[in-house]
Amino acid sequence: MRLGTIRYSSGTRAVRLEDDGAVVLPFDDVGALLRSGSDWRTHASAAGERVGLDAVRHRPVVVAPEKVVCVGANFDRGTGEPRPRFPSLFTKFPRTLIGAGEDIDLPAPSVSEQVDWEVELAAVIGTEVRREPERTAARAIAGFTVLNDISVRDWQWRTSQIFPGKNFERTTPLGPHMVSVDEVADVGDLELSCEVDGQRVQHGRAADMIFSPAEVIAYVSTFTTLVPGDVVAMGTPPGSGVTRVPPVFLAPGQVVRSVISGIGEMSNRCVGPR
Amino acid sequence: MRLGTIRYSSGTRAVRLEDDGAVVLPFDDVGALLRSGSDWRTHASAAGERVGLDAVRHRPVVVAPEKVVCVGANFDRGTGEPRPRFPSLFTKFPRTLIGAGEDIDLPAPSVSEQVDWEVELAAVIGTEVRREPERTAARAIAGFTVLNDISVRDWQWRTSQIFPGKNFERTTPLGPHMVSVDEVADVGDLELSCEVDGQRVQHGRAADMIFSPAEVIAYVSTFTTLVPGDVVAMGTPPGSGVTRVPPVFLAPGQVVRSVISGIGEMSNRCVGPR
Repeated sequence: MRLGTIRYSSGTRAVRLEDDGAVVLPFDDVGALLRSGSDWRTHASAAGERVGLDAVRHRPVVVAPEKVVCVGANFDRGTGEPRPRFPSLFTKFPRTLIGAGEDIDLPAPSVSEQVDWEVELAAVIGTEVRREPERTAARAIAGFTVLNDISVRDWQWRTSQIFPGKNFERTTPLGPHMVSVDEVADVGDLELSCEVDGQRVQHGRAADMIFSPAEVIAYVSTFTTLVPGDVVAMGTPPGSGVTRVPPVFLAPGQVVRSVISGIGEMSNRCVGPR
Repeated sequence: MRLGTIRYSSGTRAVRLEDDGAVVLPFDDVGALLRSGSDWRTHASAAGERVGLDAVRHRPVVVAPEKVVCVGANFDRGTGEPRPRFPSLFTKFPRTLIGAGEDIDLPAPSVSEQVDWEVELAAVIGTEVRREPERTAARAIAGFTVLNDISVRDWQWRTSQIFPGKNFERTTPLGPHMVSVDEVADVGDLELSCEVDGQRVQHGRAADMIFSPAEVIAYVSTFTTLVPGDVVAMGTPPGSGVTRVPPVFLAPGQVVRSVISGIGEMSNRCVGPR
């Protein structure tokens, strides 16, 4: 089952995406659907008004998650470095999120010209968990989607805490839809890639993630409660612009395509300040 | 004007605190009051049901801020270190917050025995700001309150990102009330102190803050919109437990008293897991 959130009248609605259209569900977004309780799969399967795919305008799969937790440096780069003992975690405010097809707001050049891409697999939480053992933590996941953790590198590294460079408003595509976990046979088989103006800049396999979604969810649940609609982004494979020689960054007009095989793909155009 | 949020029936209500009682206002918390628009001062001045101070049970001044942004290492320690160029920022989830008088939830000893205190001045945002110059940024502040940024030191330093150690659920007292900005003549004159079981462990003056509230608000507003009810915590003076020789940490049963002269004071008891 593929579930997304679309613009609808003056607001948004959760939809079930099918091959020939989207079925409108009576929830404001996928977050509200997941918060409807353990029956969310039943609610998501209901009949409803159909919208043609041409008319679909995506918003972030979850418009305003209570939490967006991200794992940094979570891909084995084959350099033989020892596995870190703990995941490195940071957060994004919901105000960073945009939907598939929506514009990435670049800062003014006077603020930064170091905006970079980071395609990531994101788990969407469907069941509340606190102090959950790793063994059972995967059960908290409702499904998976694509996130691009667009990062403003100079602001990320101004101090030891990377939070500011990860929190520029309207920079983080999340979508186009969540694929429910029953349709993802093996997370490790998922392939992630990112293209800028049609040129592949990142590629990696989820099997190379250091910490698994279940490990990260169990770890986070030690200190806080994850709730339905929360998003856990699993880190990015090699190929970000800042790691190139010379570094490459995004410019107004460029299009970032974020793809995960079997999950979905989305394109977002970079725009400068109006 | 002193505004707080109290338990009321099965929920919470914003109140105006007076010398002989609390006046109940028709808003769920001070956050909702501030989000009511530029007339919030008028709404806060209204008549209403009176509750005796004995019956007041505080919740966090803002129960669920959209954002809690904190500045680390923001006090000049007199060591002659150069002033940092940029504030070091991190965030707390609203789930960390508790009210004056509510218990601080210590983690199980198997998770951590390194829980530490950090009394801080917190600005509460009353007016939405984005890309606000420093010169005018103080106008965004509705008032000031007290926050204790209780920190789990080992979890804070497991990786370069301190977020996990700052985000244990129900650890962060915020209150007891917000003093509106018109009643704070000079922020620099405010004195902060923290006591554990009646013994003073921290003391400092807001004049020793490296970055002012206006500077931090202007800086944050470069990348995100601050909205009414958001909380900006301004860093802690010297004296935290981990800086002592040998280090000292909190234990179940201990009481943390957080005081800012002219703003307010609150006491919170540490409790172990049930």
